[in-house]
Amino acid sequence: MLKIHEPVIIVNFKTYLESTGKKAIHLAKQAEKASQETGVQIIIAPQFVDLAKIAETVEIPVFAQHLDPINPGNSTGHILADALKEAGVVGTLINHSEKQLRLIDIQTTVELAKEKKLVSCVCANNPTVSAAVATLKPDITSIEPPELIGTGIPVSKAKPEIITNTITLVHQINKKMPILCGAGISQAEDVTSALNLGTHGVLVASGIVKAKDPYNILCTFANATTK
Amino acid sequence: MLKIHEPVIIVNFKTYLESTGKKAIHLAKQAEKASQETGVQIIIAPQFVDLAKIAETVEIPVFAQHLDPINPGNSTGHILADALKEAGVVGTLINHSEKQLRLIDIQTTVELAKEKKLVSCVCANNPTVSAAVATLKPDITSIEPPELIGTGIPVSKAKPEIITNTITLVHQINKKMPILCGAGISQAEDVTSALNLGTHGVLVASGIVKAKDPYNILCTFANATTK
Amino acid sequence: MLKIHEPVIIVNFKTYLESTGKKAIHLAKQAEKASQETGVQIIIAPQFVDLAKIAETVEIPVFAQHLDPINPGNSTGHILADALKEAGVVGTLINHSEKQLRLIDIQTTVELAKEKKLVSCVCANNPTVSAAVATLKPDITSIEPPELIGTGIPVSKAKPEIITNTITLVHQINKKMPILCGAGISQAEDVTSALNLGTHGVLVASGIVKAKDPYNILCTFANATTK
Amino acid sequence: MLKIHEPVIIVNFKTYLESTGKKAIHLAKQAEKASQETGVQIIIAPQFVDLAKIAETVEIPVFAQHLDPINPGNSTGHILADALKEAGVVGTLINHSEKQLRLIDIQTTVELAKEKKLVSCVCANNPTVSAAVATLKPDITSIEPPELIGTGIPVSKAKPEIITNTITLVHQINKKMPILCGAGISQAEDVTSALNLGTHGVLVASGIVKAKDPYNILCTFANATTK
Repeated sequence: MLKIHEPVIIVNFKTYLESTGKKAIHLAKQAEKASQETGVQIIIAPQFVDLAKIAETVEIPVFAQHLDPINPGNSTGHILADALKEAGVVGTLINHSEKQLRLIDIQTTVELAKEKKLVSCVCANNPTVSAAVATLKPDITSIEPPELIGTGIPVSKAKPEIITNTITLVHQINKKMPILCGAGISQAEDVTSALNLGTHGVLVASGIVKAKDPYNILCTFANATTK
Repeated sequence: MLKIHEPVIIVNFKTYLESTGKKAIHLAKQAEKASQETGVQIIIAPQFVDLAKIAETVEIPVFAQHLDPINPGNSTGHILADALKEAGVVGTLINHSEKQLRLIDIQTTVELAKEKKLVSCVCANNPTVSAAVATLKPDITSIEPPELIGTGIPVSKAKPEIITNTITLVHQINKKMPILCGAGISQAEDVTSALNLGTHGVLVASGIVKAKDPYNILCTFANATTK
Repeated sequence: MLKIHEPVIIVNFKTYLESTGKKAIHLAKQAEKASQETGVQIIIAPQFVDLAKIAETVEIPVFAQHLDPINPGNSTGHILADALKEAGVVGTLINHSEKQLRLIDIQTTVELAKEKKLVSCVCANNPTVSAAVATLKPDITSIEPPELIGTGIPVSKAKPEIITNTITLVHQINKKMPILCGAGISQAEDVTSALNLGTHGVLVASGIVKAKDPYNILCTFANATTK
Repeated sequence: MLKIHEPVIIVNFKTYLESTGKKAIHLAKQAEKASQETGVQIIIAPQFVDLAKIAETVEIPVFAQHLDPINPGNSTGHILADALKEAGVVGTLINHSEKQLRLIDIQTTVELAKEKKLVSCVCANNPTVSAAVATLKPDITSIEPPELIGTGIPVSKAKPEIITNTITLVHQINKKMPILCGAGISQAEDVTSALNLGTHGVLVASGIVKAKDPYNILCTFANATTK
């Protein structure tokens, strides 16, 4: 099972055209190069359709963006843990604010991931939900206030108390839980302030995917984590 | 855009272990061989994660099992038409009984598919729903009574009136709509009786995926369509 | 079963505070008075919790805002047709754009309504979806472009082609289907233009619920239908 | 706000015909009589449509079976806290296994309930989910393994470890959280064993609703809580 090296950067490719198909592979390679250059762990989460090719192209860890709470069988149109696994995927986002799940399904997918040795990174919209997530014992909890996603207004500056409250509440449940934050992170100083608040990394998307030079931005982000 | 050659056989890989990863590629090749051998159009619908590799491995048409009603952007964990397209996918199942959609989302995905030149095959549980589907002008309508799915009891024998009623209702809306049927089809004679009832092909899954020799069964199915 | 007298006005109470509890009963009485005064059929659709008291207070027809596709049994938190029926409810909205259903569930609820002799009024967002709805044979189809709901910009003026296309498509399926339209209707002339376009009535909400004098506005709407 | 007197019995009316309309009122009166007779707090959770009349008929506390995460406005077909409140409802079940919610919606409804001074009783399917629920600070947590619901096989006997694990995990989060259990409870001794395991009451449904003499059964249940 993948070992998380903090501080970590997860790049969520979402469903942008800039991170689809050939462009997704290109972006994955830039992330890989930035990771190798800086020595910082950069994980990428491409679209399902692009996962297999990307996982065989790059050496950095590849996550899925979602996992369905199913076992092998007749579940047309669903995402099976075994399929991710065989494609070389080593972890998955769960309950991203754009793909929110019922509580029971979060629990089931976290356990499925554990069983299949996939790293689970469960997202939460606010500190209280983060605490609930922590009880489910995922490998990583990520806090992202949805109102800031895609805005370029960094959570680490605009709402630092969301991050510090999350850390307090999550660590009351589970002292060792790595906590990431995301939403609006588009500059190296946003990464620095996120880490200064006590997080163990960041979850980024449009700030990288839609950047003119993702490699360059990722290097500045990665370097910011080591200061 | 793919031209459908009736009678057609669509093999839904679902999320069986027998149709995941390397086994999915192997199964795809058997379907390709059966298609080439018999001259019958065989379309395969593997899991999302396996689509890209299969589409570059085989020459028969590859469908997705589902499409989300989204445009490029921030839709973490969703299936984007452009991603399917770039992976070499030429069509998609929509509203399979194991992945049923809101009416508005069926309409939106059919239109998205049309826009992206993906063949849309919309599934329906009963004749009335098939008629509703027909008004949305997909390329194919498929009728599958969910109570027979995976049973080995073929719809074409157990409930022929479901098929004939579907054909009547759908053709009142759209005379030229190709209509497939599925559920419980596991023997060549089930295919024959489906076509004799007036369908333009079959949608099969476990009968092929879990067969000891899928190539052989597919050949008998394909030959049954040309009798 | 309730007989619909065209042109009809349906007032959807939604979940506004102005149409909750005692205020809902007061609003229901104003609708009743406007109906009695003008001789025009006014149907009201209050919240579930208010249905029983309103149905025993007023003599105009009372609809539910939604019905669940369930039979009696263990369905905690769902809306049972028998419960509506026993409360004196005579019909129901289905698939309102704020409570959209899977296609299969629209079909099931329309049939449940028929079985229980509840009038079904199925809503659709656009002409194509209206045609799909018409195949399911509800008692009424209502077209409401969601982008105009609550705006005060009347569909009958802003997008008349949505209404005329709906009428054309729906009547190709079912010549006798009564068709209502809604969204943004807040003045008597919006009602007139809706009827002039060929509809059989209107579905209104905030234009009445949030009006200073709902009785007065409803009278002008009702009088507009008889010109 | 309603004060919970432990041990408490909550009767979920679900959507049985035996607990719909007039029969619901009759059942409510029997529950009231049993509560008055035994001095044990019995709370009833009828269907939405029956809530208002029942709340004005009986003096025992009346809960809803579900609450939607909405504020007043345009939410056709949803359950508004203000509507419950004005109908005399004093609390609500949330996330019953037959009406499961997304994690974010559980949190939102618990906070809405708090704001409106409605007692929140959040249900969970297993001990881990119970712990997650406890972090959201509802007034009551209830554990119900869905596989036993409606079976007559009491959770307190068949799976006592589910109850004791729930109590342990929940009390690690919140020492004072009242914990109920449900599923299969149909005899007085099931109630006794549930309390002996450390719960603060029971959540019952078919065992009462479908009993020949619900008053009598409820009295034996109530008496069992005071032994």
